[in-house]
Amino acid sequence: MNRGIIRYVLGAVIKIEGILLLAPFLTAIIYRESVGKSYLIVSLICLAVGSLLTTRKPKDSVFYLKEGCISTSLSWIVLSFFGAIPFVLTGEIPHFINALFETISGFTTTGASIIENVEELSHASLLWRSFTHWIGGMGVLVFLLAIIPMSGGGSINLMRAESPGPSVGKLAPKMKTTASILYTIYICMTMFEFAALVFAQMPIFDAICTAFGTAGTGGYGIKVNSIGDYSVPIQWIVTIFMILFGVNFNAYYYLQEKEFKKAFAIEEVRTYFIVIFVAVAAISINILSQCTGIFDAITKSAFQVGSIITTTGFSTVDFDTWPAFSKTILVILMFIGACAGSTGGGIKVSRFIIFFKALFKEADSYIHPKSIKKITIDNKPLAHDVLRSTNVFLNVYILIFVCSILIISLDDKSMQTNFTAVVATFNNIGPGLEGVGPTQNFDGFSNLSKIVLMIDMLAGRLELFPIIILFHPEIWKEILSRREARKKKIRKKLENFKE
Amino acid sequence: MNRGIIRYVLGAVIKIEGILLLAPFLTAIIYRESVGKSYLIVSLICLAVGSLLTTRKPKDSVFYLKEGCISTSLSWIVLSFFGAIPFVLTGEIPHFINALFETISGFTTTGASIIENVEELSHASLLWRSFTHWIGGMGVLVFLLAIIPMSGGGSINLMRAESPGPSVGKLAPKMKTTASILYTIYICMTMFEFAALVFAQMPIFDAICTAFGTAGTGGYGIKVNSIGDYSVPIQWIVTIFMILFGVNFNAYYYLQEKEFKKAFAIEEVRTYFIVIFVAVAAISINILSQCTGIFDAITKSAFQVGSIITTTGFSTVDFDTWPAFSKTILVILMFIGACAGSTGGGIKVSRFIIFFKALFKEADSYIHPKSIKKITIDNKPLAHDVLRSTNVFLNVYILIFVCSILIISLDDKSMQTNFTAVVATFNNIGPGLEGVGPTQNFDGFSNLSKIVLMIDMLAGRLELFPIIILFHPEIWKEILSRREARKKKIRKKLENFKE
Repeated sequence: MNRGIIRYVLGAVIKIEGILLLAPFLTAIIYRESVGKSYLIVSLICLAVGSLLTTRKPKDSVFYLKEGCISTSLSWIVLSFFGAIPFVLTGEIPHFINALFETISGFTTTGASIIENVEELSHASLLWRSFTHWIGGMGVLVFLLAIIPMSGGGSINLMRAESPGPSVGKLAPKMKTTASILYTIYICMTMFEFAALVFAQMPIFDAICTAFGTAGTGGYGIKVNSIGDYSVPIQWIVTIFMILFGVNFNAYYYLQEKEFKKAFAIEEVRTYFIVIFVAVAAISINILSQCTGIFDAITKSAFQVGSIITTTGFSTVDFDTWPAFSKTILVILMFIGACAGSTGGGIKVSRFIIFFKALFKEADSYIHPKSIKKITIDNKPLAHDVLRSTNVFLNVYILIFVCSILIISLDDKSMQTNFTAVVATFNNIGPGLEGVGPTQNFDGFSNLSKIVLMIDMLAGRLELFPIIILFHPEIWKEILSRREARKKKIRKKLENFKE
Repeated sequence: MNRGIIRYVLGAVIKIEGILLLAPFLTAIIYRESVGKSYLIVSLICLAVGSLLTTRKPKDSVFYLKEGCISTSLSWIVLSFFGAIPFVLTGEIPHFINALFETISGFTTTGASIIENVEELSHASLLWRSFTHWIGGMGVLVFLLAIIPMSGGGSINLMRAESPGPSVGKLAPKMKTTASILYTIYICMTMFEFAALVFAQMPIFDAICTAFGTAGTGGYGIKVNSIGDYSVPIQWIVTIFMILFGVNFNAYYYLQEKEFKKAFAIEEVRTYFIVIFVAVAAISINILSQCTGIFDAITKSAFQVGSIITTTGFSTVDFDTWPAFSKTILVILMFIGACAGSTGGGIKVSRFIIFFKALFKEADSYIHPKSIKKITIDNKPLAHDVLRSTNVFLNVYILIFVCSILIISLDDKSMQTNFTAVVATFNNIGPGLEGVGPTQNFDGFSNLSKIVLMIDMLAGRLELFPIIILFHPEIWKEILSRREARKKKIRKKLENFKE
């Protein structure tokens, strides 16, 4: 294992966080809030620690998948750790476990909160909460790739570990270029949404936070009623942008390159829009009697469908009061999630496409035992190892899912609360149903459950493997054997010294 | 498609049902109940229809998997259809849909009931309900194989379609012998349980019905409180026999052949007992505060665990009032189910063993990309197509599961009711939680939901494929093209005749 490069990446990430923490500090200055100094202190600590870790360049910048996974998952843990400290220092979230939950929920773009009345928070903290969504949405390591030149072809392993989806496409031959393209699209779209929201007369601060929350498909609101109190035009702007941020970013790249045919040919994106359309139609009809008219029903269902399938988690109504059919559709959408290569979470539309295609191929082979059909995606044959890893992904997903529910059921909340709490965190959505519904929060869980849900959020955001690899006994053996070896070395040196 | 053999099998099955229907008729005579004549009428109808269909022997007795699947699923539908008529004629279940639900639930050994007060039923109907469990437990086609000589090696396809589990073992070179062995073990064990129950002072009629319900892992009780009103020794006898009937019958065959080593070496059976042990221990501790002592807690948890994992569905307590942790364990056990080759339902322990072994092998290959490990079961390498069909099974299972929940959610019952209603019928258990808990029944669902749940019960009992194949467009095309061809033939004949 190349420990030098892992240390270096971690240092760079912490340094970046130090710079990012200046945003809430500036907000505090603008609003003359005393909490600003907490953010400044943590920012300085981050800059110091980060600089210390990056003074020595690693001898070897070779990056394998293992290093990619480990540095990604450690980066996210470290980011969340430092990001949680200001909440404790300002006293707004006094318990560290709660602050950590809130920050992990932010960076993983989940949006599950333990705060009862979000309107009591300072502007600085509100901005920091929403900003973590924006940072986590595209991923901090992708950002790193965009700004730091890394030699060797292995840096795709960093991106592979952080980017969602069964297969990461290289948009440009160089990773640095790919990362820059992605961040450019991301920043432009966020700015478009901000402009649209301000144009629809949303206050500027609200528009910044909402744009951050939408872009990262996070979902932290700055009002108790999330987006429910804003005007219908604002709700529609948020709906449209939520859905747009759930689209595979490759599509935008093709659009920008004026390759319109290629953009519209992406099977995943078409399927994604079909699913949204069907879900909105079904729910609109189902909730019609609870609404003032068909337009109201479509407005409400489109917002909630867009929010859930992209795993954003904003809400304009308490969908926990909807009929069971609509709620069941929302729960199914929670699992499906957004497109791969977007900022959204969930299992991803493309994995379901692969799942169904494999299923129909198998069913066919029962009737025609001798037929040899190949599964194709976007008219290209699907590589066997993508199919295999999709299967493994789904199986591991189910396993983690069941274990999580079993552990948090020890808190003796209702089965539906437990089930949807895991669904909502593991898929990085935010709100679930019943005890964790849109009007509720996650504070009622025990610390053990909160830790399980935090692991679920990280595992969900990083798509299982980078987090699981941290628990693999071999990795621990390697770390322990290194320590053992180092101790032996020191002991030998001491013995030599004595002699 | 060999239609002659399918017709012949169906005829034989209906004839057998005609004979079996004499059991409730005799019960009615003993208890001097007027409902007896309804059973006699249906019995005579079955004998007549069955004889009519079996007068002409099929020209060709070749049996492929397709014929096996189709005759199995049609047999079960026809069995349930005729078996439901007496309930309507006696007026005890006036609506045919409900009567069909009750009968399918009986034959598939589910035990989900639409009857509110079971104690109002006649003895004849109570016996028929429990008897359907016993018939469905081992399977009526296996019985057919045991008594009718079928030429050709294809008859294993009949058994494969009806017997549970990823791979059906041949115990003897001839299918007829295998089927006889299975039924001999089945009858002997049922008689043992009956004797034990009578010895523990259970009334004879109750002991017959309870033994039938346990042997088939069905779960229809003849009391409102299921087994709850009987003495603790009776509860333990039922517990032990439920667990024994969930064991792979191969183990009993080996025991009887005095091959003890082989019997205890079956991985599935050992895993099954470990799962039961862990679940009983965990639940006993969790419900201790609700019980009068540790023995009471173990008695209750062992009964419920045995009942749920074997998918029997008897109950001695209303486990819907247990803490969430215990309920979650029970729901997990509902999915796991019993051993393959037993009378129990569910996904089956062996499929989970394959699932986990494949998962760990994959996880290993991420760390050691070059290792070549083979999955072994009972020290034999696992055939690739068993692994593949297990994967397909699980995927189809999930798909049917989600679709069923979505459709029955239209009834607007609670999400937990919908979820556990599908779990309980699809896995052939019987009771679920909340609206379909042990003290509730399935009558509240709409006809559409009842039909979906009936398909689920059949698909669960026959392990998906035989039922799915009925819906496959190719099969319909074949049937329709045959009809088209026959029409053409007749038309041609007519034309020839005119000329």
